[in-house]
Amino acid sequence: MPRPGLLETFPNPYPGREYEIVMTCAEFTSMCPVGGIESDARELAALEGGAPDFGTITITYAPNRRCVELKSLKLYLWSFRNDGIFYERAVNTIFDDLSRAVRPRDMTVVGDFNVRGGIKSVITVRAGRRKGRAAG
Amino acid sequence: MPRPGLLETFPNPYPGREYEIVMTCAEFTSMCPVGGIESDARELAALEGGAPDFGTITITYAPNRRCVELKSLKLYLWSFRNDGIFYERAVNTIFDDLSRAVRPRDMTVVGDFNVRGGIKSVITVRAGRRKGRAAG
Amino acid sequence: MPRPGLLETFPNPYPGREYEIVMTCAEFTSMCPVGGIESDARELAALEGGAPDFGTITITYAPNRRCVELKSLKLYLWSFRNDGIFYERAVNTIFDDLSRAVRPRDMTVVGDFNVRGGIKSVITVRAGRRKGRAAG
Amino acid sequence: MPRPGLLETFPNPYPGREYEIVMTCAEFTSMCPVGGIESDARELAALEGGAPDFGTITITYAPNRRCVELKSLKLYLWSFRNDGIFYERAVNTIFDDLSRAVRPRDMTVVGDFNVRGGIKSVITVRAGRRKGRAAG
Amino acid sequence: MPRPGLLETFPNPYPGREYEIVMTCAEFTSMCPVGGIESDARELAALEGGAPDFGTITITYAPNRRCVELKSLKLYLWSFRNDGIFYERAVNTIFDDLSRAVRPRDMTVVGDFNVRGGIKSVITVRAGRRKGRAAG
Amino acid sequence: MPRPGLLETFPNPYPGREYEIVMTCAEFTSMCPVGGIESDARELAALEGGAPDFGTITITYAPNRRCVELKSLKLYLWSFRNDGIFYERAVNTIFDDLSRAVRPRDMTVVGDFNVRGGIKSVITVRAGRRKGRAAG
Amino acid sequence: MPRPGLLETFPNPYPGREYEIVMTCAEFTSMCPVGGIESDARELAALEGGAPDFGTITITYAPNRRCVELKSLKLYLWSFRNDGIFYERAVNTIFDDLSRAVRPRDMTVVGDFNVRGGIKSVITVRAGRRKGRAAG
Amino acid sequence: MPRPGLLETFPNPYPGREYEIVMTCAEFTSMCPVGGIESDARELAALEGGAPDFGTITITYAPNRRCVELKSLKLYLWSFRNDGIFYERAVNTIFDDLSRAVRPRDMTVVGDFNVRGGIKSVITVRAGRRKGRAAG
Amino acid sequence: MPRPGLLETFPNPYPGREYEIVMTCAEFTSMCPVGGIESDARELAALEGGAPDFGTITITYAPNRRCVELKSLKLYLWSFRNDGIFYERAVNTIFDDLSRAVRPRDMTVVGDFNVRGGIKSVITVRAGRRKGRAAG
Amino acid sequence: MPRPGLLETFPNPYPGREYEIVMTCAEFTSMCPVGGIESDARELAALEGGAPDFGTITITYAPNRRCVELKSLKLYLWSFRNDGIFYERAVNTIFDDLSRAVRPRDMTVVGDFNVRGGIKSVITVRAGRRKGRAAG
Repeated sequence: MPRPGLLETFPNPYPGREYEIVMTCAEFTSMCPVGGIESDARELAALEGGAPDFGTITITYAPNRRCVELKSLKLYLWSFRNDGIFYERAVNTIFDDLSRAVRPRDMTVVGDFNVRGGIKSVITVRAGRRKGRAAG
Repeated sequence: MPRPGLLETFPNPYPGREYEIVMTCAEFTSMCPVGGIESDARELAALEGGAPDFGTITITYAPNRRCVELKSLKLYLWSFRNDGIFYERAVNTIFDDLSRAVRPRDMTVVGDFNVRGGIKSVITVRAGRRKGRAAG
Repeated sequence: MPRPGLLETFPNPYPGREYEIVMTCAEFTSMCPVGGIESDARELAALEGGAPDFGTITITYAPNRRCVELKSLKLYLWSFRNDGIFYERAVNTIFDDLSRAVRPRDMTVVGDFNVRGGIKSVITVRAGRRKGRAAG
Repeated sequence: MPRPGLLETFPNPYPGREYEIVMTCAEFTSMCPVGGIESDARELAALEGGAPDFGTITITYAPNRRCVELKSLKLYLWSFRNDGIFYERAVNTIFDDLSRAVRPRDMTVVGDFNVRGGIKSVITVRAGRRKGRAAG
Repeated sequence: MPRPGLLETFPNPYPGREYEIVMTCAEFTSMCPVGGIESDARELAALEGGAPDFGTITITYAPNRRCVELKSLKLYLWSFRNDGIFYERAVNTIFDDLSRAVRPRDMTVVGDFNVRGGIKSVITVRAGRRKGRAAG
Repeated sequence: MPRPGLLETFPNPYPGREYEIVMTCAEFTSMCPVGGIESDARELAALEGGAPDFGTITITYAPNRRCVELKSLKLYLWSFRNDGIFYERAVNTIFDDLSRAVRPRDMTVVGDFNVRGGIKSVITVRAGRRKGRAAG
Repeated sequence: MPRPGLLETFPNPYPGREYEIVMTCAEFTSMCPVGGIESDARELAALEGGAPDFGTITITYAPNRRCVELKSLKLYLWSFRNDGIFYERAVNTIFDDLSRAVRPRDMTVVGDFNVRGGIKSVITVRAGRRKGRAAG
Repeated sequence: MPRPGLLETFPNPYPGREYEIVMTCAEFTSMCPVGGIESDARELAALEGGAPDFGTITITYAPNRRCVELKSLKLYLWSFRNDGIFYERAVNTIFDDLSRAVRPRDMTVVGDFNVRGGIKSVITVRAGRRKGRAAG
Repeated sequence: MPRPGLLETFPNPYPGREYEIVMTCAEFTSMCPVGGIESDARELAALEGGAPDFGTITITYAPNRRCVELKSLKLYLWSFRNDGIFYERAVNTIFDDLSRAVRPRDMTVVGDFNVRGGIKSVITVRAGRRKGRAAG
Repeated sequence: MPRPGLLETFPNPYPGREYEIVMTCAEFTSMCPVGGIESDARELAALEGGAPDFGTITITYAPNRRCVELKSLKLYLWSFRNDGIFYERAVNTIFDDLSRAVRPRDMTVVGDFNVRGGIKSVITVRAGRRKGRAAG
């Protein structure tokens, strides 16, 4: 189960300046929901053939008062490893958990998932002061 | 024949938030219309030398109340396999069938087809709230 | 000599919808004008050392009532094969001939020519409703 | 069903010289055997969710008295389109049908198939005078 | 824990012919041994910061009487997901389990693991009739 | 310790014209702060396992009256080599030191750092007349 | 029609030393034989829809007493421009004409032709002292 | 020494239409100013260790009444070969010389120079009707 | 100064089997010898303009009784960070230190260093049972 | 004119061990012989349209008692800058000058020159103990 409590932050060393931080984790993995039901599939899934999902998570944000600590972000993303969760929910959950942790000026989270059934999926969630600006 | 009835949807888990979903199928194939006539060419074409077309279909949309289910999308795209259909019609048909199924905030469908006679074709159909914004 | 009469069109199956068609021919070839004079260089040039030019032609347009037929476009582009013509004129000629044939909402023609004398040339002609938007 | 009768040949214009011909078709498609049973799945499979396979077939041979005609090879490879067949059998069948048609000095057939279930497969069959030489 | 019992095989359709099968899984993941001790780390590791490893496993073999079934191979590789195991042991274990399952003419297993501590590791195990030939 | 005194400038040869200079150093290295404390880690860190960081620094600016001298920029960037410093502070420091040295019309500094713990970081600081324009 | 008389040579400046020269022309073009008949198709073909072929010719040789002059090679390859000729014959003809012109220690000619009907062709002719060594 | 007198122009064949020409020369070379002094370094520099610079010059312009002749542009760029000149001055000089020669609607000149001292430099000069539009 | 004492080893889990381990560190850095004299340049060099070198070290070996521990290898490679040392000596030193530590069946060490003065250098040292086989 | 006197060497630090050094200079330039006559073309050529050549020189050798000093190699390669010389002679001259300077166990020099008249040339000279082994 995703564990937002793992996220740690530190004071932004340049709080008065607008700048941008991009963090990319190419080793994100979770479990496909078994039987279409999102659940904490863990051990069971591995034994019974539940399918793992793989993807790259990219987080872009303009820090406000706090920045997310890199190592804690890694641990937080690892906490999805044995969870049965849909792509749409995973990306929105990461967006919500990080937004709550660092309260950024703006933030974008992209989940770029490996091909399944011949189809590749990319989910993008974006919010904040620059929300009006399109992805392009 | 394309079978829009194969498309299934599920409730958008974050209906109040605008976010974007991109799905890419690099294994789209249909048949070139035999004698320039669009038809259900199937078996016949394979026997008589009707030419298969190959391409990549990319669907981008901002979900509203419902999302398209990935596996059903795969089955729907497979249903073009033995159909004689022009590129322009194929891409517009996919756009229409998906729009009806999920009623998105906005949607873009791109068909990027393999070289035929030394010429490569890409067809792009786009509609919705962001329609004014060009492809860029 | 370019032969616009080779271009054939067919009715746009979705005339009420604005969408985009891109066609790319990576096998365009013509002759460099001999002695700087544009002419029908053909046989002569091959014998006397007139130099062939090679390039990629990319045509982007939003169809109005008619679309260009792919095979006829191929034949039309082949008709430059033995013609002595400058890059600037070739790209503008293709733009004019295609504009007349399909009367598009907007159109862009790009000629991307191979290195000659250590210099690569790209010519872009654009017109129509989106003309104000720059290439970017 | 694969139709070796579609293969046509023409006399090797340089029969006394050993040289090599490589032909690559990046648009090979067949059907995955339904329920693990190889069969002529066609229409049925498309309706019931039988899965299409996609791959690239590369044929390398040193011609002896005859060469395979390119267009007939294309038609022959198309004839697998609606057949339920395992990768191993498909590549060996192409190898056997072509060997019989042109009786080459030596021949290699490689089938490089798209990812399925996260795993990519490549099958290589080789025979003839140079058989002792490994793939390297 | 790796579960070789998941591996299933089917009869080689061309047992009298030497040919080659390559299967590549780019989504292999296991756990780094916690505290340098190889163990069944599972749940615990995820909670306490044990680090997941990621890599690509490539299996090349010349089948003898039996071939490995693709889907069962996928399930077998998934069974390493929550295991604490060193790279060297993982690759040799896959080599041994597959060798026992299909008794190939020869086999090579390569594990190409993601960067850890700025260093990338690739482990190659090879055996069989062609053992004398080096990787090159 | 970063030594802004190393930066030298020369008069902009075209001070009345707005133009752009981009300088990219792909060999930036500093030390990760030991124990999370930013310090002058040098010798000690190398002995006790403090970790070096590696990245690419890209500086874009529109010169005003002065340009930064290339060789002095190289020496300045080398002066971070044995310094314990966070990514966020390093990029903002370079931005501040260069801004003070050349007082540009506008400037952007991007630090693109190598993967650590499976996560890649990119920090972007931007200011000046074009500040309103987003990164895109 | 190919005109071997265009080929000019100059004395090898280091005739006593074995060394290797590779010349690659990525702008080779000829005509597909009309109606399957090899002929001097020229003007006619362009008017009636005969199809141009495009490819890359790579010539590798160890010079003996003479080297081929680069500009004359260019003119010679241009002389195929309006000729209707099969791939197999074109590559063998270039091999024969060049062999006669420079009498090399050994020579290889490779014709790598663009996709036609979804199939790419590569023809390799090799002879001389190193003939025994395979392509590898 | 740069010799703008080498630049020749020809009448724009489509003077009433706004279109774009891009010319890229990847073989630009000049000399680094010896002792930081810009001069005509030539022979001397080669003997005493003055360092050559290498880069790619890209010229983009919308022609007005005249176009620059390709071969004369090549000769003009060659005229920098033995000149000691700073990057900033070289790019601005090319911009000025070409602007005077063709009086374009707008023009951009980019000099992308090879790494020196581990740092790569790109200089961009732009002017004309579209000057307000940023580089992106 | 390189510190071979940092290297730790562990028992090869499959000592009776010949297999291969490749470890690649793309973040190797040392100092260029100051004034052409190899020395422990450290602090001094950074202050006086001694130049850092950057490269990629690739170690390939067939383990005998022991394997090198990955983390200790990282620390060992870091110990070159502030050392003034020539490329040739650095690669041979790594080869010697690792050979002594693991006594492999055979080993190759490659140092691939970044461009300096426009020239890139790659040093390869190889020894052991397979020494006779060249790099190819 | 090439000046072999610029080449300096230093004692091989590991003279008893066979190892390999590869040095690559991607910024080699010389002049095309004017009127087909090799000469010291310099200033004249630049004025009268003599054409510069560009290429990449790669030197591979197993040092014996001495190694070539990197900076002196750079100066030596610069000395071809204003020389009119054929590709074949340039590569053989570099081979001879370096062989004399370091008397290697074996050496290979490759000159990979930019496209001229649509044709790319690569010249390879090789000698020494491994001479029998072909390029592969």
